[in-house]
Amino acid sequence: MIIVTSNRTPEERIQEIVAVIEKEGLQVHISRGKDRTIIGLIGSIEPKLAEHLRQMKDIENVIKISKSYKLASRDFHPENTVITIGDVKIGGGDLVVMGGPCAVESPAQIDEIASLVKAAGGQVLRGGAFKPRTGPYSFQGIGVEGLAMMAEAGKKYGLLTITEVMTPEYVDVCAEYADILQVGTRNMQNFDLLRKLGDSGKPVLLKRGFSATYDEFLNAAEYILAGGNPNVMLCERGIRTFETYTRNTLDLAAIPVLHSLSHLPVIADPSHGTGRRELVEPMTKASVAAGADGLIIEMHTDPDNSMTGDGVQSLFPEQFAALLRDLEKLSPLVGKRFDTPKLIQHG
Amino acid sequence: MIIVTSNRTPEERIQEIVAVIEKEGLQVHISRGKDRTIIGLIGSIEPKLAEHLRQMKDIENVIKISKSYKLASRDFHPENTVITIGDVKIGGGDLVVMGGPCAVESPAQIDEIASLVKAAGGQVLRGGAFKPRTGPYSFQGIGVEGLAMMAEAGKKYGLLTITEVMTPEYVDVCAEYADILQVGTRNMQNFDLLRKLGDSGKPVLLKRGFSATYDEFLNAAEYILAGGNPNVMLCERGIRTFETYTRNTLDLAAIPVLHSLSHLPVIADPSHGTGRRELVEPMTKASVAAGADGLIIEMHTDPDNSMTGDGVQSLFPEQFAALLRDLEKLSPLVGKRFDTPKLIQHG
Amino acid sequence: MIIVTSNRTPEERIQEIVAVIEKEGLQVHISRGKDRTIIGLIGSIEPKLAEHLRQMKDIENVIKISKSYKLASRDFHPENTVITIGDVKIGGGDLVVMGGPCAVESPAQIDEIASLVKAAGGQVLRGGAFKPRTGPYSFQGIGVEGLAMMAEAGKKYGLLTITEVMTPEYVDVCAEYADILQVGTRNMQNFDLLRKLGDSGKPVLLKRGFSATYDEFLNAAEYILAGGNPNVMLCERGIRTFETYTRNTLDLAAIPVLHSLSHLPVIADPSHGTGRRELVEPMTKASVAAGADGLIIEMHTDPDNSMTGDGVQSLFPEQFAALLRDLEKLSPLVGKRFDTPKLIQHG
Amino acid sequence: MIIVTSNRTPEERIQEIVAVIEKEGLQVHISRGKDRTIIGLIGSIEPKLAEHLRQMKDIENVIKISKSYKLASRDFHPENTVITIGDVKIGGGDLVVMGGPCAVESPAQIDEIASLVKAAGGQVLRGGAFKPRTGPYSFQGIGVEGLAMMAEAGKKYGLLTITEVMTPEYVDVCAEYADILQVGTRNMQNFDLLRKLGDSGKPVLLKRGFSATYDEFLNAAEYILAGGNPNVMLCERGIRTFETYTRNTLDLAAIPVLHSLSHLPVIADPSHGTGRRELVEPMTKASVAAGADGLIIEMHTDPDNSMTGDGVQSLFPEQFAALLRDLEKLSPLVGKRFDTPKLIQHG
Repeated sequence: MIIVTSNRTPEERIQEIVAVIEKEGLQVHISRGKDRTIIGLIGSIEPKLAEHLRQMKDIENVIKISKSYKLASRDFHPENTVITIGDVKIGGGDLVVMGGPCAVESPAQIDEIASLVKAAGGQVLRGGAFKPRTGPYSFQGIGVEGLAMMAEAGKKYGLLTITEVMTPEYVDVCAEYADILQVGTRNMQNFDLLRKLGDSGKPVLLKRGFSATYDEFLNAAEYILAGGNPNVMLCERGIRTFETYTRNTLDLAAIPVLHSLSHLPVIADPSHGTGRRELVEPMTKASVAAGADGLIIEMHTDPDNSMTGDGVQSLFPEQFAALLRDLEKLSPLVGKRFDTPKLIQHG
Repeated sequence: MIIVTSNRTPEERIQEIVAVIEKEGLQVHISRGKDRTIIGLIGSIEPKLAEHLRQMKDIENVIKISKSYKLASRDFHPENTVITIGDVKIGGGDLVVMGGPCAVESPAQIDEIASLVKAAGGQVLRGGAFKPRTGPYSFQGIGVEGLAMMAEAGKKYGLLTITEVMTPEYVDVCAEYADILQVGTRNMQNFDLLRKLGDSGKPVLLKRGFSATYDEFLNAAEYILAGGNPNVMLCERGIRTFETYTRNTLDLAAIPVLHSLSHLPVIADPSHGTGRRELVEPMTKASVAAGADGLIIEMHTDPDNSMTGDGVQSLFPEQFAALLRDLEKLSPLVGKRFDTPKLIQHG
Repeated sequence: MIIVTSNRTPEERIQEIVAVIEKEGLQVHISRGKDRTIIGLIGSIEPKLAEHLRQMKDIENVIKISKSYKLASRDFHPENTVITIGDVKIGGGDLVVMGGPCAVESPAQIDEIASLVKAAGGQVLRGGAFKPRTGPYSFQGIGVEGLAMMAEAGKKYGLLTITEVMTPEYVDVCAEYADILQVGTRNMQNFDLLRKLGDSGKPVLLKRGFSATYDEFLNAAEYILAGGNPNVMLCERGIRTFETYTRNTLDLAAIPVLHSLSHLPVIADPSHGTGRRELVEPMTKASVAAGADGLIIEMHTDPDNSMTGDGVQSLFPEQFAALLRDLEKLSPLVGKRFDTPKLIQHG
Repeated sequence: MIIVTSNRTPEERIQEIVAVIEKEGLQVHISRGKDRTIIGLIGSIEPKLAEHLRQMKDIENVIKISKSYKLASRDFHPENTVITIGDVKIGGGDLVVMGGPCAVESPAQIDEIASLVKAAGGQVLRGGAFKPRTGPYSFQGIGVEGLAMMAEAGKKYGLLTITEVMTPEYVDVCAEYADILQVGTRNMQNFDLLRKLGDSGKPVLLKRGFSATYDEFLNAAEYILAGGNPNVMLCERGIRTFETYTRNTLDLAAIPVLHSLSHLPVIADPSHGTGRRELVEPMTKASVAAGADGLIIEMHTDPDNSMTGDGVQSLFPEQFAALLRDLEKLSPLVGKRFDTPKLIQHG
């Protein structure tokens, strides 16, 4: 950590600052410039001390050199984390595709969509039972019933399932039915929820807050890891910018950046990341080219009549299947494996 | 609501769209342009229908003309809401000042600060017992004990109290001790928390999410109002922009904008809105000049040693008192009342 | 165009507004709602009239349905624009790679880099002779001399050349030496420069302003097109957001969005778009996967000693060559052609 | 300046880096941490060296401790700059109000508005003769004629005049007619224009780019100052954020921040800063409360029929006059003087 003192801080004040630091058992290196004195701290620094220093008079700036998260950092854990759930390995070289509707609506709907996800080569079925909605008068999901419908469809077709959990109290029931628990963008800093997910051993897909920096995102992951749950995937789903043509600005540089800062798998969400069906295909391919370990894509058999407003970003089943066939060719060019089912010709 | 069809949508498709609308008992006005046909809808439109239309093929754009929130809207409730708690009226022409530390630390600390808030003319004591922190390794507040300490100090000095509540399960205990419950910026869209606060009758200060639009902010307030709690204050506390010199960009235009869109009182938070002590005084005055109904300001007797990192934005007691004396003169110029205690001369 | 009147505008005022519109020879369709009256305008609307209406009392909102640009719009020109310069066709299915240093430094430097761009398969040599710099004390480029050096290197190796032009007065001299003129991000709305480029017949690569919307970007292109120059390429080079880890946020959704709104070729700049060498490779591939017609990439033989601060985002020659070999395989998967030179084995 | 090396950079590489620095005659202080070595540089550092270091391998971060601008900095020039033009002093304790139309339209229009600005107490007449417009088909101003009309009106009523200059070639003619030259937000980094204004001795009002940081803003001012022109005013006019209800987000914290970083006067533009007439009054007052040295406000006698689209943000004359009367009372509370003309009663 580096401490920059204000213009012409007197020597005696410098000595007071140094005393505070040395009292904590840390070494100090002092560089005296014409206008400013700079104090370098060597050793493991408690966040509390950093905060204390930041507030002292005559200290203009405190610059963190090391990162505030540890367990999420690649410095701490150089090897990629690979999350294994049944036959599926996430982060280990296989491209993982999660597909399905925004919301589970009925047993028939989720069954049909599950069959299409499986046929196209997807490994995970997505679907919301509880929906976070901006206004109180919008459709809020069908609840626990929906979880059961999705679990049954997943089992029938041999798909893992993922669903969003919105509050700590629903973690247990969601964990009972689904294989992966998703934290939505508005909950990235719902710290109680993150702690509860740390306790549960369940794999978690953590979506980036739509205005969260990489540092905040990795600190949110740290909450889950620090609770004892190592199975965290990071999901880039678009950030809020001045551009309003797209629902969000999908920040694909996040994929290689997060891979360099962290060992956790990175998933892209081109559906929420763009909010427009016609952009899902090019942005899915771009995500894979940028190095994503997986994708979460909305697909619906009847998007015009979906129960949420998100049909507008859902692919039709035939678009989804065609896209996955393209990913099969694209994946090997970036060191990934992805296979779609092959029709067997009987002669 | 206005529906814009895609370039050269055939007439028969227009008729299909119209049929969907008329089935819902709504009237339609059609305007045929050279390239696009525009369909105006008259009547009360269910959000579900709007969403459905937005997803139909050949519909390029669905433009909402009326707002998605009702109870929070000034159209619906033209008179200002005035929230009365004991002797204090918020939103009715009195300027209300809430002051105190970021975090309650000890009985002596909160007692001393409360005495200073009172002496300076403040009406409400602020202090956090549970702190939302970006990383898991930071100080998280001292909990329920802190609530009791603050309640006692408030009672002793005749101050109302306000504290942040972070999860639905803590609403009841916070409501037991504090007069106003604060929802932090990261929780503006924690819908379960908003619903729980709707059930509780307690006055709520709702902070704007640091990346929330005015529309999303008012929809969040709508959740609380729709739950039956009319006592909501809106708090502008700065938004996230590209500028990083200040912690946030305090958006003071939000004050007159929210006053025009809504009847709810508007409070400004110049401490979090800037994150720098030297900016609190000018931005407090600017907030009052822009029409704020109240302020929430951090003040600490020993900011260098505060337990959170927010001392850097806390005023010293003498700065706080001087600022409130200035507000006494400024308030009448913008139609507000604010009095500081007068020393009585004994002869 | 749609006009929304304020809450409860009286009928006589509506009639006055209608009279203003009809005076311009336009038809009007009126939809009367409970609170608001909506007026639809049919016909070709002068921007002047739109502006006038926007300012009239009792008009709450004027919503443009058609776009403010015409020549840049795909509605107006459904076929892709293909810009042919010598043997190179941009926008017609070939992937075009522009490579070279941030700044031309010496004849030897640009000669060596040109030979490496050619050997790797690039078609265009980039290099700055005039550099826009944030502060007045930074290196500002070597000027016209640099143009001549680059032209000679381009000629020697059979490469087209591209260079940035910063002011109207330099358009002619830059056009004399270079094949493509580049408008930098800070000049996207330098309208005098755009007009001057409209007059010149020279192909232009127009960079998106780092805070420009798609609409503003296409309006800037419209200035050049309206001046009579149809040879405009649009270049996505990253936008400014709250995230500061990367120099900019490369908005790859811009590629398919601009392709849908416009017929002009779209080029991506992963060097400035990220500002970090290690991100250039994945973001280049992602750009191609998203449908880019070309790329502009910084490459330097000695980035540690480049004369501008941009060496940090320049690829080393071997990285550049390896990346282009990967693009050769990736291009056909997204319907593009790109070939790198093949070594001929002598037996 | 502080150099942070990458994780575990070997000692010999550290020594190479140190050699590069010492060759430039600078002293070095080295702090060796467990993971990273930090090198502090003492002495005056050339930007070129900083850039060079930033690009060297094994250097993770180069942190500037001192600022990149000098002449604009308060460190360099501790006293406030006061710009004196005729009887008007800007930056010296008088509040200066610049008022007038977006565009000069006719002799009668500008004469009438000038008389109203004067009567209300304004000291400067604003008006555009050349207008920067997003699209090529909008009204672009009436040109030099407009300058003459405005100069005449200014002279007649004893007002200074300010007008926007858009290109270097028009600096001379604008300087001939107007007292203050304004640089628009889109031209803040038009470096040729800034240099030309540095040559001219004329006072300049430099508007902040709508996405410029404080640092970039002050570096742009530095261009003018470095050219030998000390008469620069900084103008906060709103920044681009995710919020679209207002045209821009007026960043009032910029006022005290710029006052602390720089000695130059700071002017606020609440008209462009909000884009909505009803917000101009509260934001003008807030600007003064935040410490602005002056204001630039649009006022029009017939905003519904103004020739640009900006009538929507122009005050009516009576609103303008009432606002200035309020500023007369507000100014002394923040240490400023402002007087409106008093009617003289004849007995």
